[in-house]
Amino acid sequence: MRDHPEISLPDDGYLGPDARQKEVALELYRSVAGLPLICPHGHVNPRLLADEDATFGTPTELFIIPDHYVFRMLYSHGIPLEELGVPRVDGDPVEQDHRKIWQTFAEHFYLFRGTPTGIWLTEELNTVFGVDEKLTGETAHDIYDQIEAKLSTPEFRPRALFDSFNIEVLCTTDAATDPLGYHQSIRDSGWQADVRPTFRPDAVVNLDTPAWRDNIDALSEASGITVDSYATFIQALEERRLFFKRMGATATDHAAVSAYTAELSLAEADAIFQRALRGDATPEDAGRFTAHMIIENARMSVEDGLVMQFHVGSIRNHNQLIFDRFGSDMGADIPERSEFTHNLRPLLNKYGNDPRFTLILFTLDESAYSRELAPLAGHYPAVKLGPPWWFHDSINGMMRYFERVTETAGLHNTVGFNDDTRAFPSIPARHDLWRRVAGNWIAGLVVRGIVDMDDAREMARDMAYRLAKRAYKLEGESAE
Amino acid sequence: MRDHPEISLPDDGYLGPDARQKEVALELYRSVAGLPLICPHGHVNPRLLADEDATFGTPTELFIIPDHYVFRMLYSHGIPLEELGVPRVDGDPVEQDHRKIWQTFAEHFYLFRGTPTGIWLTEELNTVFGVDEKLTGETAHDIYDQIEAKLSTPEFRPRALFDSFNIEVLCTTDAATDPLGYHQSIRDSGWQADVRPTFRPDAVVNLDTPAWRDNIDALSEASGITVDSYATFIQALEERRLFFKRMGATATDHAAVSAYTAELSLAEADAIFQRALRGDATPEDAGRFTAHMIIENARMSVEDGLVMQFHVGSIRNHNQLIFDRFGSDMGADIPERSEFTHNLRPLLNKYGNDPRFTLILFTLDESAYSRELAPLAGHYPAVKLGPPWWFHDSINGMMRYFERVTETAGLHNTVGFNDDTRAFPSIPARHDLWRRVAGNWIAGLVVRGIVDMDDAREMARDMAYRLAKRAYKLEGESAE
Amino acid sequence: MRDHPEISLPDDGYLGPDARQKEVALELYRSVAGLPLICPHGHVNPRLLADEDATFGTPTELFIIPDHYVFRMLYSHGIPLEELGVPRVDGDPVEQDHRKIWQTFAEHFYLFRGTPTGIWLTEELNTVFGVDEKLTGETAHDIYDQIEAKLSTPEFRPRALFDSFNIEVLCTTDAATDPLGYHQSIRDSGWQADVRPTFRPDAVVNLDTPAWRDNIDALSEASGITVDSYATFIQALEERRLFFKRMGATATDHAAVSAYTAELSLAEADAIFQRALRGDATPEDAGRFTAHMIIENARMSVEDGLVMQFHVGSIRNHNQLIFDRFGSDMGADIPERSEFTHNLRPLLNKYGNDPRFTLILFTLDESAYSRELAPLAGHYPAVKLGPPWWFHDSINGMMRYFERVTETAGLHNTVGFNDDTRAFPSIPARHDLWRRVAGNWIAGLVVRGIVDMDDAREMARDMAYRLAKRAYKLEGESAE
Repeated sequence: MRDHPEISLPDDGYLGPDARQKEVALELYRSVAGLPLICPHGHVNPRLLADEDATFGTPTELFIIPDHYVFRMLYSHGIPLEELGVPRVDGDPVEQDHRKIWQTFAEHFYLFRGTPTGIWLTEELNTVFGVDEKLTGETAHDIYDQIEAKLSTPEFRPRALFDSFNIEVLCTTDAATDPLGYHQSIRDSGWQADVRPTFRPDAVVNLDTPAWRDNIDALSEASGITVDSYATFIQALEERRLFFKRMGATATDHAAVSAYTAELSLAEADAIFQRALRGDATPEDAGRFTAHMIIENARMSVEDGLVMQFHVGSIRNHNQLIFDRFGSDMGADIPERSEFTHNLRPLLNKYGNDPRFTLILFTLDESAYSRELAPLAGHYPAVKLGPPWWFHDSINGMMRYFERVTETAGLHNTVGFNDDTRAFPSIPARHDLWRRVAGNWIAGLVVRGIVDMDDAREMARDMAYRLAKRAYKLEGESAE
Repeated sequence: MRDHPEISLPDDGYLGPDARQKEVALELYRSVAGLPLICPHGHVNPRLLADEDATFGTPTELFIIPDHYVFRMLYSHGIPLEELGVPRVDGDPVEQDHRKIWQTFAEHFYLFRGTPTGIWLTEELNTVFGVDEKLTGETAHDIYDQIEAKLSTPEFRPRALFDSFNIEVLCTTDAATDPLGYHQSIRDSGWQADVRPTFRPDAVVNLDTPAWRDNIDALSEASGITVDSYATFIQALEERRLFFKRMGATATDHAAVSAYTAELSLAEADAIFQRALRGDATPEDAGRFTAHMIIENARMSVEDGLVMQFHVGSIRNHNQLIFDRFGSDMGADIPERSEFTHNLRPLLNKYGNDPRFTLILFTLDESAYSRELAPLAGHYPAVKLGPPWWFHDSINGMMRYFERVTETAGLHNTVGFNDDTRAFPSIPARHDLWRRVAGNWIAGLVVRGIVDMDDAREMARDMAYRLAKRAYKLEGESAE
Repeated sequence: MRDHPEISLPDDGYLGPDARQKEVALELYRSVAGLPLICPHGHVNPRLLADEDATFGTPTELFIIPDHYVFRMLYSHGIPLEELGVPRVDGDPVEQDHRKIWQTFAEHFYLFRGTPTGIWLTEELNTVFGVDEKLTGETAHDIYDQIEAKLSTPEFRPRALFDSFNIEVLCTTDAATDPLGYHQSIRDSGWQADVRPTFRPDAVVNLDTPAWRDNIDALSEASGITVDSYATFIQALEERRLFFKRMGATATDHAAVSAYTAELSLAEADAIFQRALRGDATPEDAGRFTAHMIIENARMSVEDGLVMQFHVGSIRNHNQLIFDRFGSDMGADIPERSEFTHNLRPLLNKYGNDPRFTLILFTLDESAYSRELAPLAGHYPAVKLGPPWWFHDSINGMMRYFERVTETAGLHNTVGFNDDTRAFPSIPARHDLWRRVAGNWIAGLVVRGIVDMDDAREMARDMAYRLAKRAYKLEGESAE
């Protein structure tokens, strides 16, 4: 039990509540706590790692301004984003005093009680920055000083933290049109870290993307193929996928509102593409084109071997005022119901039995776990389930996932953990939470006699390390 | 562990099962068990409190005939409502022997094992009426005698119980057309209790309400404004809201089948209203008008400061035979799926960012907790989540709510507890159950190291008392 | 806690994790562990029991080839069904070496960790076949020998196992057109076992069934009524129901994609039926006819007293390649969302209040448990809820069912357990798991003071034995 104000995470943190389960969980957790981190899906900016002198800026720049998990909660209690230093689209002034922003944050830190953000931040402050006081209005100033001092040292530059975090491999997420210059710099620098790009073509595939036409021009330029038809569009995508693969990518990532897949004829696909080039595509065109391109990207994955990730169910920019004033990714994305059984049938009937294909599915609709996703993963060779995503990347979210998915899909049709974060220094805390919660769940199976300790140890290692590595084809030299 | 036949609730009732968790839970529960009750949403008849000599009638009139939670379960096992004394619409005779009805109830009390109704009744019989035997066919007669004797004493009149229950404030639910005579009587009587009305305009807003035209006439009379157009309708509603506010109301309450919101032009709104006055409104008219009026009531809340409650998802009077024979609210309302993300977008884009607005949402579709409601509450300043509603006001229902809502929304975007009952003497048992289950849930966070004891004590007090008082703007002199 | 390699299930298997809860659970489990098995719904082939010399074949024929739970998991990891000996529709060769198939299975048995299939198989191997080693690639050969030896003894013939399993009654599932010859043989043989058929008319009721026209001819032949109109179709069904009833049936079983019910006029019903006879029925015809026939079968149940079971939500043969190559029931059925509140209203408004009618509902969409199914069962006299079905017949599936259903529906609106299996030797393991998980759940209520031990013992007996017997009208001489 944690005592205030001693905030360091005890060894048995997040384990239990049953004492025997906690004991077993602790043994399992300890057996994997030191394994390297596999980070196959995330949003770290490769720029941070490309320049060996890059820094994280102020504590406020690190913890608050870029983190929509943090400022959405503060906003929900009426604190304007301007007061938190979030930049406006129109360039109007926002709060520039980072200590003042930090003070506001600290005074409202009680809002994060019991939330994953609260847990990550507390653990990160403690284990990465050595903070051993609770963050409150009273301690805000001291803690700011402490973090600021650390951030000014060489040990707290991104590359140094990368090394100290024991990251075996980190994959970023990059637009199809990205020249991958930062990735090239990392390679050229001689730094011995395994940092890989991931191919994300949404901005050229989804016709209703703002500035889609500009993105197509960028695609032409990046690929060297003039994209003026559906055929050249496909050629350009294939070229870019190969380029990403040469740069180390093992996976692609695709987002759509729904999981709808449907194949168009070549003629239809080209007709829609031409309308889009002319600026005449309808919303229905966009929906059907995305549905088709998911299948087309699956075809490419079958051919080039890149693992396909598919994230669905988020209604982006739900709050128009926030979107107009601050842009996208401002904590105003709200999930909707998702349907997989019917929507994925065309895709799976085409490629779901192909041994060369891996499709990793992510959902924001937990009701689909036991009803649709686990049955699909427990049958189709191609289908695997990604870890609990976004709002569900939490203690209870993980438990619901383990309890609803594993009995039908089996653990080996899941892919371990993704930290999915742009907050680089939070990566160890996120993996640590997963490893603890997974250990605790497995321990619950052990104390109820469902699995024995030999199996439990294998499962702990699978969940902490091996499943992710295998599913994302990151195997090679192993830490084991 | 409870032993038969000693039925008094032990101190640690509903806590655990883990022993350490139970110990912490007991400490947290004890720290709030004596706090006054905040009852911001319920259905107690103010008539009971307007007349200081009012009584509850027989045990059967108190516990069975008016309680659809009780008679729905008995009905599901084939006991006709007539045998339970429930009055028929056609006035045909029903069982009048209240002892016989009680005997039937007692013989079937085993049907309520593990149900919230069973828990409330057992605790109420014990703590309010001093019953220390288990209710069975054998004990039915004695227990009836015991309750009957108590009910005949002055200490068991509604006002006396109100005082002994330590209720700080009780809000009733009242039609928009209600003259609030009972509320006026309470005020005039000099009795020092805080009893407030809540403005519920469904019967004039939902055009498909039976006798809607009569309700509009009643609205004209109550407001002194002749309602013959959309414009006068709005004026009359605004007048009534101000009247309710003067009578102490701090909130309004709105029910609809779905959460659909959509704004009409003034011309469209008036055209639909005129069709309704002529009796020509279509079901589609009714749906669109309700969707519009939710937004319009939100506009009024922004202006007059009344907190807006919105309950959705119940298909009323699902069983036609029961409706024809016994009328509404006869235990035959069945939930359906609810959608919030798209349906609320028009409302939230208009008023969701306004600091003057509070919208408290209630659902019967638990799959929306983590998928839609917690994300909405965790972003929009106006949105808060009401406690688990109706069928979900139970031990497991509360646990599911805590586990699915809090991680994303944060505790401070929830509003504590509502007893939501017309069964006045059950109020303490309902709050007690909430305080125990909340304490147990927080204790689970403590023993797993997720929050410390300082935070836990704050959370317990928030959940038992402060959140409800703050969300419903019932703050003033405090018991703290 | 189970130790490798000792794999026998300890007394407290699947109980806990809390030590006090486990103690109470063990007492409850022991109080029902010896009760006879009531098997009111399953898919055992009556042929196995009609011939006293029938055998189960090889271990591979018993455990792998016919069990889609087993081979779907192996297939999901890329093992072709041909390598598992599953016969192809086209008769092309598949693996015939049953030891080799067993070896493949054993090497992949780790895939079943934490799954119900893994639990059933482990318990069945241990308690039925005396296997006390863990199944792995290393032990595969020895275990195969051990099972093969057992299967060749008279004690392991189906009838002998039936007797040793302490089965009080076993119901099979049989097409409406089935002459029930095996059932007649069982009766004629003088063997004193209670084996009963269940009337399942899907193949003649659902117009889109492959070979529907042939099934109608078979119905004519079986009933002796020439089915050439809707009226004669109904007569033939009524005749068959009476025949099944004379053969011991107490129930019917109906499957549909959705729970949609709607009554057709006689003229419409006949027009659709005539179109179907001509091969001209549309998919919409089929949907409406099924919706109508559910109501019509309910009418027959009201008249002949057969209990009606209704299973919805499975999209059959989702994977076209598997269907084309191996046929139906090959582990490729995937659930979809189900809606009950609106869909069942026509049926329930017609017969839901009739005391002669019992409707047992099954779902693959757990989100409907607390939202729709428990409220329906807690109100309508006719409605009861079947146990967690198919993918949800698991430890967590049962717990979710208990926690989401019981508070609103009450335990007595549920019907105990169905093993629902074609894998005859797994029956005891399935009932044992249910009895353990039910005992553990009840124990959780006891240690939290929600029910006392007297009630707990009644509940354990109800769940293990009495509820199923009562709901399926299998009461008569009792084992109690």
